[in-house]
Amino acid sequence: MQTVKLDLAHAPYDIHIARDLLTQVELIKPLLLQPRVVIVSNATVAPLYLKSLQDALEAADIQCHSIILPDGEVYKTSETLNLIFDELLTERCERKTTLIALGGGVIGDMTGFAAAVYQRGVPFIQIPTTLLAQVDSSVGGKTGINHPLGKNMIGAFYQPKLVLADLATLDTLPLRELSAGLAEVIKYGLIDDLAFFEWLEANIERLMARETEALAYAVERCCQNKARIVAGDEKEQGQRALLNLGHTFGHAIESGLGYGVWLHGEAVAVGMMLAAFASRELDQISDDDIARIESLLKKAGLPVQAPQLGNERYLDLMAQDKKVDAGKIKFVLMRCLGESYIGELNRETVIAALDAGCSSV
Amino acid sequence: MQTVKLDLAHAPYDIHIARDLLTQVELIKPLLLQPRVVIVSNATVAPLYLKSLQDALEAADIQCHSIILPDGEVYKTSETLNLIFDELLTERCERKTTLIALGGGVIGDMTGFAAAVYQRGVPFIQIPTTLLAQVDSSVGGKTGINHPLGKNMIGAFYQPKLVLADLATLDTLPLRELSAGLAEVIKYGLIDDLAFFEWLEANIERLMARETEALAYAVERCCQNKARIVAGDEKEQGQRALLNLGHTFGHAIESGLGYGVWLHGEAVAVGMMLAAFASRELDQISDDDIARIESLLKKAGLPVQAPQLGNERYLDLMAQDKKVDAGKIKFVLMRCLGESYIGELNRETVIAALDAGCSSV
Ligand SMILES: NC(=O)c1ccc[n+]([C@@H]2O[C@H](COP(=O)([O-])OP(=O)(O)OC[C@H]3O[C@@H](n4cnc5c(N)ncnc54)[C@H](O)[C@@H]3O)[C@@H](O)[C@H]2O)c1
Ligand SMILES: NC(=O)c1ccc[n+]([C@@H]2O[C@H](COP(=O)([O-])OP(=O)(O)OC[C@H]3O[C@@H](n4cnc5c(N)ncnc54)[C@H](O)[C@@H]3O)[C@@H](O)[C@H]2O)c1
Ligand SMILES: [Zn+2]
Ligand SMILES: [Zn+2]
Repeated sequence: MQTVKLDLAHAPYDIHIARDLLTQVELIKPLLLQPRVVIVSNATVAPLYLKSLQDALEAADIQCHSIILPDGEVYKTSETLNLIFDELLTERCERKTTLIALGGGVIGDMTGFAAAVYQRGVPFIQIPTTLLAQVDSSVGGKTGINHPLGKNMIGAFYQPKLVLADLATLDTLPLRELSAGLAEVIKYGLIDDLAFFEWLEANIERLMARETEALAYAVERCCQNKARIVAGDEKEQGQRALLNLGHTFGHAIESGLGYGVWLHGEAVAVGMMLAAFASRELDQISDDDIARIESLLKKAGLPVQAPQLGNERYLDLMAQDKKVDAGKIKFVLMRCLGESYIGELNRETVIAALDAGCSSV
Repeated sequence: MQTVKLDLAHAPYDIHIARDLLTQVELIKPLLLQPRVVIVSNATVAPLYLKSLQDALEAADIQCHSIILPDGEVYKTSETLNLIFDELLTERCERKTTLIALGGGVIGDMTGFAAAVYQRGVPFIQIPTTLLAQVDSSVGGKTGINHPLGKNMIGAFYQPKLVLADLATLDTLPLRELSAGLAEVIKYGLIDDLAFFEWLEANIERLMARETEALAYAVERCCQNKARIVAGDEKEQGQRALLNLGHTFGHAIESGLGYGVWLHGEAVAVGMMLAAFASRELDQISDDDIARIESLLKKAGLPVQAPQLGNERYLDLMAQDKKVDAGKIKFVLMRCLGESYIGELNRETVIAALDAGCSSV
């Protein structure tokens, strides 16, 4: 088992990474304020993993209640959130009851947000079951739900007490979801870790084949990178925004096509391509760098070409994104391969990037 | 102008108290991150005070948008909250846009919660226009909404950047609302400030007549008391719960009768009577003390007799309240007049208190 520590002064916590953590209740039990948890999962994940977790908890005399939500990004809404509150209140859950998120990023984001605001805050634990959730969404305390006018618009910074990344759960992950997770993995290489990018170029096939050793290394390295960035800037006042590489464009794609048509990671993959094209416009990265990024994304089974939404629609959707300050849109750009920074783009550069990214590449 | 400081290490802020603060934009302007605010108010308060505030802000080159909600505790719901989000997103409000709550506790609680979770947190300012909001709800950062199964069940601890208690706004407050506010004022005397309780006994008529000097003194003293308690325990891990004196019983009354039938302050007044009866059961306060509390509440125009909901219904409603820990209900009890503590009551004592409080007193 590898352990990465997220060193927040007010609330440090561990991220454990290994196969079969789901049943290692001794990792969970010492953190509970009362021997009672509510597990939030969805209709896809629950049949696969809920029973193991629940049996293990109950064997350790921990009372369990589970809430099974419908599966999908389209359910990451205030209506579904209210279903969680209804159950918590009907079950008379108290301020010391711990919520456990068992699922991908959708379940993690919603459960975390429910925990943040139920009775003004109850403890919660993340058990991410997608690669994307293990390397990204379960770590760092961003929680939230979507709004018809924008993704993740309502939420809170609220840290879990523990993250258990059980690599065995990835065995059942659909390939398309594995690829989507790899988009966020590749993102860490591009943000500030060229050595990891190069490791990925050499090991992408092993990851696609779900070799445990390769997965364990990649998840650990991503969590280390994310933990370092988050510990330095919990509330995203500065450097944390680097984690949004590819996301300004990506969110526009997700919301422009309608949530759920493209996977988040797919949109981020193309978003990174667009960020790369914009950076090339600024003479910061070369055609060769772009080719390397494109090739790695393709080997990871990811799209590299942007959907044709029309430039004006892209600009409009991005103006609605969160990363807006006094009307100016912020982008994460690449200074060179493996080094990113936060900057602004003028309209022409955005359009040039969109033109390059929407045509065949 | 009196100023009380809330000394939170991570986010200290000022509470200013005086007449005509509404137009003193120089108190607000230095705190804004961008020259743009959204004022949230309701259909009763907006016609009275929105224009003065908005004109003053606009004269100082601050862009204003206002959101006018329907008036009433029954609207302190997730539906109304969503109306706020819809407007904020339609107006493309950003992370640096400050929300201003202009109204009583309902507007303050909802606006504060909207600010806490819109884009994971935007700055907000409280301009409380009821006595209750000036002495209690606007100070200390508790924000939230109701759920059909319980009051204030969804929320966040989220501090304002500033509180402006404009005493002139109290001129238009209905008498019944003034009385409701006085319940919370009297509460501070009972928690730990016998001298203030005695000042209230001597000055209750001046407060009922809305004499500025008396109001200013009472609001300042309450804010000082609340600021001290909150600074010592922001997240209500311990002593802050003293502020719930009368509230466990009070919430049961509000929710049992249906939100909005009794005013919050009225329910708290009776709740304090019930807490007093329970404390007398424990031989902690005397008949004479109870008579003094009852007399002061009556002079403040408040009810002192509990509605007949039935003891079982009371017990059930209280078990659903937030102040529950491993199934045990916590109460704020009186050790003597002007000194309270957090304790538990057995079933018999609760029933004895209810019997005493529901019969004619
Ligand atoms: N909070 C953050 O910092 C952060 C970061 C990145 C992404 N996100 C959010 O995460 C979400 C995307 O997360 P995701 O990619 O995990 O999507 P997801 O949660 O929708 O999971 C993808 C699909 O895989 C299924 N699934 C999950 N685990 C499985 C398993 N072990 N076996 C088989 N099927 C399984 C799910 O039911 C779902 O159908 C988005 O809502 C995004 O906004 C949040
Ligand atoms: N956050 C906290 O710490 C805290 C503490 C105590 C109470 N509360 C909450 O506060 C709420 C009660 O607050 P409230 O008593 O201010 O009720 P309220 O906000 O409903 O206001 C009472 C009535 O007075 C009207 N009004 C407000 N200002 C006026 C003015 N200046 N002139 C004329 N009419 C005016 C309102 O429109 C409303 O009709 C409850 O929801 C309660 O849960 C919160
Ligand atoms: Zn992402
Ligand atoms: Zn109150």
